[in-house]
Amino acid sequence: MGGFMAKNLLKKGYKLTVFDINKTAIDNVVSAGAKGAESVAEVSQNSEVIVTMLPMNQHVLDTYTGKDGIISSAKKGTFLVDSSTIDPSVSQTVFKAAQKQGLRFVDGPVSGGVIGAKNGTLTFMVGGSKEDYEASKSFLEGMGSRAVHCGDTGMGQVAKICNNMLLAISMIGVSEALSLGEKLGLDPKILTDIVNTSTGRCWSSEVNNPVPGISPTVPSSNDYAGGFGTSLIAKDLGLAQAAATRAKSPIALGSLSHQIYRTMEAHGLGGKDFSVVYPFIRGENVKK
Amino acid sequence: MGGFMAKNLLKKGYKLTVFDINKTAIDNVVSAGAKGAESVAEVSQNSEVIVTMLPMNQHVLDTYTGKDGIISSAKKGTFLVDSSTIDPSVSQTVFKAAQKQGLRFVDGPVSGGVIGAKNGTLTFMVGGSKEDYEASKSFLEGMGSRAVHCGDTGMGQVAKICNNMLLAISMIGVSEALSLGEKLGLDPKILTDIVNTSTGRCWSSEVNNPVPGISPTVPSSNDYAGGFGTSLIAKDLGLAQAAATRAKSPIALGSLSHQIYRTMEAHGLGGKDFSVVYPFIRGENVKK
Amino acid sequence: MGGFMAKNLLKKGYKLTVFDINKTAIDNVVSAGAKGAESVAEVSQNSEVIVTMLPMNQHVLDTYTGKDGIISSAKKGTFLVDSSTIDPSVSQTVFKAAQKQGLRFVDGPVSGGVIGAKNGTLTFMVGGSKEDYEASKSFLEGMGSRAVHCGDTGMGQVAKICNNMLLAISMIGVSEALSLGEKLGLDPKILTDIVNTSTGRCWSSEVNNPVPGISPTVPSSNDYAGGFGTSLIAKDLGLAQAAATRAKSPIALGSLSHQIYRTMEAHGLGGKDFSVVYPFIRGENVKK
Amino acid sequence: MGGFMAKNLLKKGYKLTVFDINKTAIDNVVSAGAKGAESVAEVSQNSEVIVTMLPMNQHVLDTYTGKDGIISSAKKGTFLVDSSTIDPSVSQTVFKAAQKQGLRFVDGPVSGGVIGAKNGTLTFMVGGSKEDYEASKSFLEGMGSRAVHCGDTGMGQVAKICNNMLLAISMIGVSEALSLGEKLGLDPKILTDIVNTSTGRCWSSEVNNPVPGISPTVPSSNDYAGGFGTSLIAKDLGLAQAAATRAKSPIALGSLSHQIYRTMEAHGLGGKDFSVVYPFIRGENVKK
Repeated sequence: MGGFMAKNLLKKGYKLTVFDINKTAIDNVVSAGAKGAESVAEVSQNSEVIVTMLPMNQHVLDTYTGKDGIISSAKKGTFLVDSSTIDPSVSQTVFKAAQKQGLRFVDGPVSGGVIGAKNGTLTFMVGGSKEDYEASKSFLEGMGSRAVHCGDTGMGQVAKICNNMLLAISMIGVSEALSLGEKLGLDPKILTDIVNTSTGRCWSSEVNNPVPGISPTVPSSNDYAGGFGTSLIAKDLGLAQAAATRAKSPIALGSLSHQIYRTMEAHGLGGKDFSVVYPFIRGENVKK
Repeated sequence: MGGFMAKNLLKKGYKLTVFDINKTAIDNVVSAGAKGAESVAEVSQNSEVIVTMLPMNQHVLDTYTGKDGIISSAKKGTFLVDSSTIDPSVSQTVFKAAQKQGLRFVDGPVSGGVIGAKNGTLTFMVGGSKEDYEASKSFLEGMGSRAVHCGDTGMGQVAKICNNMLLAISMIGVSEALSLGEKLGLDPKILTDIVNTSTGRCWSSEVNNPVPGISPTVPSSNDYAGGFGTSLIAKDLGLAQAAATRAKSPIALGSLSHQIYRTMEAHGLGGKDFSVVYPFIRGENVKK
Repeated sequence: MGGFMAKNLLKKGYKLTVFDINKTAIDNVVSAGAKGAESVAEVSQNSEVIVTMLPMNQHVLDTYTGKDGIISSAKKGTFLVDSSTIDPSVSQTVFKAAQKQGLRFVDGPVSGGVIGAKNGTLTFMVGGSKEDYEASKSFLEGMGSRAVHCGDTGMGQVAKICNNMLLAISMIGVSEALSLGEKLGLDPKILTDIVNTSTGRCWSSEVNNPVPGISPTVPSSNDYAGGFGTSLIAKDLGLAQAAATRAKSPIALGSLSHQIYRTMEAHGLGGKDFSVVYPFIRGENVKK
Repeated sequence: MGGFMAKNLLKKGYKLTVFDINKTAIDNVVSAGAKGAESVAEVSQNSEVIVTMLPMNQHVLDTYTGKDGIISSAKKGTFLVDSSTIDPSVSQTVFKAAQKQGLRFVDGPVSGGVIGAKNGTLTFMVGGSKEDYEASKSFLEGMGSRAVHCGDTGMGQVAKICNNMLLAISMIGVSEALSLGEKLGLDPKILTDIVNTSTGRCWSSEVNNPVPGISPTVPSSNDYAGGFGTSLIAKDLGLAQAAATRAKSPIALGSLSHQIYRTMEAHGLGGKDFSVVYPFIRGENVKK
């Protein structure tokens, strides 16, 4: 995703210095006009604004607060945006460390997926002060179509993981309902039409229907390839679960959805779109 | 609900004979122009079309197939519509018994609730042959705004219980997500706005938000009074569960939602709108 | 199971007339000394005590209350025992019909499985009056080692389905705990030893451990063959669920266990011992 | 618990230096013969063996690896035992830090509760090398009746949280089964007797039955006072959940049990024995 985001910034005329542990990823963006760096520190020393997109909590901690990390090498006043989806408490830890060094930091996880990154239609969910949100808006919108202020540091992450938990619940719910209907004799296409004009409607029934053939362009109609991977939603559910445990906030359906996606991962479906829960609960094989 | 449905038919010029075990309910519709009957059989003997609206499986079986029930007393060719929400297999049993006596029968449960019944905006989900659906359309639309053909006998019921199962799942999911966000520091109003323009959006987040104050006119903003009762959605979830058991169709989230609503019923919340799951999972008291 | 039960009675000197829809099953017991019948009615007319063992609710209803069924053909005073595992409300319906005809009836489902039937070590859970329990005790103990009085009619069934629901929950719980331990680095054999001397101990950890190799003689050590089938425990969980819905009694873990076993059935594991949940949650293949 | 453990060591003739952030707790043990310290460091400097018992991950990290913590102040060769119930990965972190300073460390969480601590009947689940386990055995048995070697560092914790997850599942399972039986007309005492001689039997049905009056000396017969608190088992379930997420190990029932106990905590039941789930699912009030 980082590659697409970088290219959109380049198109808007921003000058970029880029780094990734995967050399090919750097070369790819360099060929589009960016300057390649050999380390995180080299990026830090050469940038007024730094945007990171990393897989997990530990990578963010290492990249920001580690030896030769961003916080120890960036110039005073540098503006930092972390677009990774991670634990809100890690964003808050990084923010405090950044602030101590005179740096500005917001968390800005995105929704819209790889396609949104490519097409520049991402939504950024921003956590930080009102001023920092305002300051970040223009270059975030250089990579996406919208930047929403969610609240203080970490609240971008909270918005992201709460939304995605609800998304997982809805997708499994839609799959259970359409599969039950089908087993009882009701055409899933007809049931989808009814649900979509009724109280059961949701994004998963309308836009990313899990039954093959109902929407010809979505993953379910293409052997569940592409889309939002089962492993990725399982990761987000894990973040929601950890935050809920800390907050002592009951999430019965969220937890169960997490476990269902973990079971599916164990069954080798981690790389398939999360709508693959439909054939999974039916015991149907999916083309690998 | 039957009262409102009857009055809408009277307004459209239909002549009605009405019966209810509650005498006051009869008087109420008689005062609006209907003729009152003293028994189910009296209705049957005087009608070309009979519409029933009953609470549970057993009432439907008794009313249709019992001694002096509709099927034994109606004239050949009478058109029967059952608008109760019941087990699809009961609708199929009644249909077979009706057919044997030369009667026509469709199941036509409704969505839209008491308010839809009053305002004539109900949707009928019709299960039966294409011909019977076509034949029923005009007088069903005399009581509502839409009649959808779902498939063969029982499929109206299947559509209804599958939709409502998904509705229950979504409502609990929205409540878990908004409550988790709130405990982590995110304003539920802001999170609602984000969810509603993102992949978590659903009817329960958009139209019947469970957090008091977000939508001023919904039950959550009025001590969870009115709306769609916890006992009623628990009943529909029970029907979904029974059908799923028979079809061996796994409904993990549907089942758990059922159990959550049963627990809430045990805690005295049966009469409150089903969005009351929000304060329930938070351990907050609700004005009784 | 019926075959083994019949043979044990023959060994004790009882005279038997036997019927099954499967002719081979009759021949099998006839070769051990029973008299074969050509219909249920023929058994009824020739017996003072009748024991039935049938798969599902509908079979019991048909066999007892159907045309030419036991109740219409048995002699006054005949003692009836139904050892099927079915819905308690069906036992109560059959009891009332039997009583009306001057027959005595108890429900007496068994625990102990096929092996218990073979070895005569079944436990009968008896529902009926104190007198009927006392009267049934001696011949029930001709087929098993114990007959327990659970309460009025249907209470044998209630005991059976409640016990089996708890059994399903424990088995999945043991599987989750041993699998989690193993993934974290703890030998399942050591964890089993600890659990079995601690507060987590249960029949499923002690007697029917789901991890291959811990108990060499149980199904898990033999590709999960034999034992108590996944489809059978799913059936019992369905009975528990139906009864719980009727009683409005919340069973969150019982319901979820039901759905897990239904998912496993959909994945083709219906014929394997219910301890096969251990490899299922791990995504491991089981020899079919 | 630490106080009771210390007193048992004193009785066996060990010399102790003790510290707690609660001065009263120190005084209590000093009055039994221990020497009080004013800081963790003071204990470290004066001890050959150090045993800690702390509430949560962060307390253990601070006490061992913090400034003036045990690891920076203990003499080379000191033997460290942490009896807290915490995340196994934290035990592993502390072990590595201790090893680097030439210290020995085992994790040794306990089962047996406050009563076990008082009576010296605790079981220690020890994680560490074979040699360290052997070396710790004698003084651990000075505080308990048994020390079991579970495996490498952290495996004591893994054993503890897996056992307690299974315990929580069993307790909720027993409560659902006995409550369902009761609602269907079956005396919980009779059902308990049947379960306890059948396949549903477990520690929670046999020893800590959740139905008031069945076992007169357990918490359920005393308004659920004493015992193993709902907040404590919720904490252990949170540890199991975090470890399971990290290991990608599905724990559907474990997760749901966690959420049920979190809901009960939100309803003000955190201080009650975890068997209080029985009245909770029934919607019954418990004397606070």
